[in-house]
Amino acid sequence: MGKNLVIIGGGAGGASTAAEAKRNDSSLNVTILQKGKFVSYASCPTPYYIGDLIKDHTKLVARTPERFSRDGIDVQLDAEVINIDSTKNVLDLKDGRHFQYDILVMATGTSAILPQMTGIDLPGVYALRNLEDAIHIKSWLRKRNAKRVVIVGGGFIGLEMSEALHAAGISTTIIHKDALPANRWDAALSSLMLEELQTHGVQFVAHASAQAIEKRTEQNLRVITDKGAFEGDMVLLAIGVRPDVQLAKSIDLKIGKTGAIAVNFAQQTSLPDVYAVGDCCEAFHKVSKSWVNIPLGDIANKQGRVAGRNIGGKPLTFEGVVGAQSFRLFNLECAATGLSEKEALYAGYTPVSNITWGSAMAPALGMRKIGLKLTADKSSGKLLGAQAVGVADVVGRINTLSVALWAGMTLDEISYLDLAYAPPFSAAWDIIHNAAQALRRTM
Amino acid sequence: MGKNLVIIGGGAGGASTAAEAKRNDSSLNVTILQKGKFVSYASCPTPYYIGDLIKDHTKLVARTPERFSRDGIDVQLDAEVINIDSTKNVLDLKDGRHFQYDILVMATGTSAILPQMTGIDLPGVYALRNLEDAIHIKSWLRKRNAKRVVIVGGGFIGLEMSEALHAAGISTTIIHKDALPANRWDAALSSLMLEELQTHGVQFVAHASAQAIEKRTEQNLRVITDKGAFEGDMVLLAIGVRPDVQLAKSIDLKIGKTGAIAVNFAQQTSLPDVYAVGDCCEAFHKVSKSWVNIPLGDIANKQGRVAGRNIGGKPLTFEGVVGAQSFRLFNLECAATGLSEKEALYAGYTPVSNITWGSAMAPALGMRKIGLKLTADKSSGKLLGAQAVGVADVVGRINTLSVALWAGMTLDEISYLDLAYAPPFSAAWDIIHNAAQALRRTM
Repeated sequence: MGKNLVIIGGGAGGASTAAEAKRNDSSLNVTILQKGKFVSYASCPTPYYIGDLIKDHTKLVARTPERFSRDGIDVQLDAEVINIDSTKNVLDLKDGRHFQYDILVMATGTSAILPQMTGIDLPGVYALRNLEDAIHIKSWLRKRNAKRVVIVGGGFIGLEMSEALHAAGISTTIIHKDALPANRWDAALSSLMLEELQTHGVQFVAHASAQAIEKRTEQNLRVITDKGAFEGDMVLLAIGVRPDVQLAKSIDLKIGKTGAIAVNFAQQTSLPDVYAVGDCCEAFHKVSKSWVNIPLGDIANKQGRVAGRNIGGKPLTFEGVVGAQSFRLFNLECAATGLSEKEALYAGYTPVSNITWGSAMAPALGMRKIGLKLTADKSSGKLLGAQAVGVADVVGRINTLSVALWAGMTLDEISYLDLAYAPPFSAAWDIIHNAAQALRRTM
Repeated sequence: MGKNLVIIGGGAGGASTAAEAKRNDSSLNVTILQKGKFVSYASCPTPYYIGDLIKDHTKLVARTPERFSRDGIDVQLDAEVINIDSTKNVLDLKDGRHFQYDILVMATGTSAILPQMTGIDLPGVYALRNLEDAIHIKSWLRKRNAKRVVIVGGGFIGLEMSEALHAAGISTTIIHKDALPANRWDAALSSLMLEELQTHGVQFVAHASAQAIEKRTEQNLRVITDKGAFEGDMVLLAIGVRPDVQLAKSIDLKIGKTGAIAVNFAQQTSLPDVYAVGDCCEAFHKVSKSWVNIPLGDIANKQGRVAGRNIGGKPLTFEGVVGAQSFRLFNLECAATGLSEKEALYAGYTPVSNITWGSAMAPALGMRKIGLKLTADKSSGKLLGAQAVGVADVVGRINTLSVALWAGMTLDEISYLDLAYAPPFSAAWDIIHNAAQALRRTM
C-alpha cells in the first residue's frame, strides 16, 4: 500500500504537485480536494475569458478530473476542508467526509482583499479570484447586456480587465487610490499606461477612495467615492489578494513575515510531511535575499513541480524568483523584474536608478517607443531591478534582464552583453546597453 | 602635442574608436581615413534603405564629418591607404598623401566574396558591402523601374534583401547552394523560412550553383545555373564576406585561424600601438572558448568603444560574444545564439539537441507559433546554443538565452528561470522552460 498524499486546493500549484508526485512515485494514493467545481485551471487568463477573447472556459482547464483519474489521481470537487487534525493526520470536510493523509500539501491560494464598505455583497459586485468567479461575471454581463463596469483598483488585474472588457464592447471606470495606475512602476512609465487607458476611453479616477456601493435600479449599481459617484452594470473589486492561510494557521504552520506559509527550498513547511505550494506560500527572492509572497501562476507551477519531485522521492530544490512579471494594456507591454527602489532600500542596498527612452527597432527604420528604468546597487554595481513599458518587445527585454539578475550581473557586464541585433528589432546598441551604460555613468 | 591616432576605416568600429578615444583623451589628434564617401554609417539597415522602408540614406549616418570635426576629430574621405610603413609609422594614400601615426587602428571591415564566374563585372551586378553600394543599387533599380532581382546566395543578407525588395514592389529569385535558406539554422526551422519566402512570392531555387551571368538586353540580365537560367533587372551577389586583411598582412600583423586579425581582450594586435576593431578582426567566443570572426555591426560598435577606452587611457576589456544574431523575414523573426551542433562538436563538446514547438502566447488565447532548438553539452548539462523561428517574440527569447549562455547556465537552471509570465506573452511554462526540460529528459 502506498502512502496517502492529499492536496488541499486544485489550482495550478496543487494540480502540478499531484501530477509530478504521481509521475515520480506511482505507489502514491493521490487525492486533490477542491472547494469549487474546477480543478487544474489557469487563473491568469480569466480576464480574457470574461472579455470573450477566450470563448470557452474549458480552454483554461489544463487537466480535467477524468484526465487525473486516468493518471491514477483522485479529484474531489466541492470538497471544502474545514478542519485538520495534524496529530491524527485527518481532514474533515464541510460535507461530513473525512480524509486520512500521510503527506499533506497546502495549495489554498489566495482570498480577495475586500474594501470595508457597505454594498460589497450586492448582486453584481464581484471579485475575480478563480474560474467560477469569471464564469459568474461573464454570465452577469451577458444577461444584462452590460455597457459599463466600475473597477475598484488600478493594479494589473484591474488594468487587464479594462482591456478585456473593452474588447467585449464594455466601457470601464477605474477607481484608484493613487495618481497613476500600477503603483509598482515608476511614475514616468505608469504615465504611459494612463495615456493608453485614456486613448481607449477608460475613465480613470485618480486619488479616489470607494466608500460605498448602492443599488440604483435592477440593472444599475453606483460606487460612491470621495471623488464623486460612478455608475455601472457591474462592480469589480480588484484591490488585491492575500494568501489564504486559515487552515495553515489552524495547525500552527509557521507563517512568514509576508503573511504567507513559510517553506524551505524543497517546499516543506514547518511540520514534517506538510508541504505548501503556490500563492499561499512564500518563495525565496534571489535579489532581496529574503522570502516573499508573489501570487503568480508561473511560480505556483514551478513550486508544484518541485514539491511533487520531493514527495515522489526525486529531490529538487526551488531556487526562487527574481520578481519577473508582466501584463498587456491595449497596445502596451508592461513588465518588471527584480526590486523597485523602495524594495531595494528595504533589502539593504543603496539603490540608484535612471530611465532611458529608446526604440524597439533601429531609429532609421522607425520609432517603437520603449521606456526602461534600471535600478542598481551603488556599492557593488550590480543590477537590482528593471521596469519597462512600450509598444513592442518589452517582455523579451525584461526577461533578458531577469536572467542577468538571476546571474547577479553588474551594469558593466550588462553594458556589453551580446544580444541578437538586427534593425527591425533594436539599434546596434540595444536600449539595455544604453540604459546600463547611462546608469553606470551616474555612479 | 598629443599623439597622432589614425584609424583606417570609418565604419561602425572605426567611428566608435575615434569618438571614444577622443572622449577619454582630448589631447589625441584623431584622424579617420575612409576609402569611400561616407563615414560612421550603419551597414545593417542598408537592405531597408534599398527597399525604401528608409527613404533617406542620411538616416543611416550616425555622425557626419562635420559632427566629428566639432568633436575635434578629422575625417578624410576618399582616402585609400595603399601602404603602411610600420617602422617609420607612416601611411601612404593612393592620392599621394602621407599620414604619420603614433597609434594605428585597423578598421578595414570586409570584402564581399565573389563567385568565380563570367559576368560578375557587368553593369547591374552588385554586391552589398557598404552604403555606397546601397545607393548605387537603389538608383539602378529606380532608373530601370526594376521588376525582378536575382539574388545569388540565401544567407541572411539575401533573405533580408528579398523582403526589402518585396516591400518596394520588386520580385526576387534566390539562387542557393543548399536545400534550405539560412544554412546555420536547423532544417526544421529553415523550412519555415522557405514557406515564408514562398508565401510572399519569392522564387527559391535550391541546390543550385550560379555558373555565369549574361546580358540579355540593356535592361535584362540572366544568371545561368545548373538548375536553369533566371532573369532579372539586377543581380545581387550575396554569398558572403571575408575580413579585409590585406593591409594588416602587409605589416605582418598576426592573423588568426579564422583569417581575421588576431587581437587580445583590449583589441590590441600583435604589433605595439596597432589596434583592430570590427569585421576585420576576431572576437573571443565565450561558449566555444575560441576566437571567431562574426561580422556584425553591434560587435564592431562594442570593440570600437573598448579600443577607444584603451587608447584613451581608461582600460577596458572586451569579454567577447556568444554568437547572438537575428534577422526578420517578412512575418517571421529568426534568431540564434551560441553554437550549432557542428560548432559545438568542433569546440570539443558532446552536443545533444532537440526542437520544441510552442506558442508565443498562452494557448487558450491563441497560437503564435515558435520553434525553439536547444543544444546542450551532455557531460556538463550546460546550454551551448539556441535557434528559433516564429511569428513573434523570438528575438527576446534568444536574448534571454544569450544571457543564460553568457552566465554558463545549465538546462536545470534554465528550466526554472523566473520569466515575466502573462497570457498575451507566454504560457505559464514558457517555451524556454519546456524546451530546457525536454532536452534534459533526453540526457
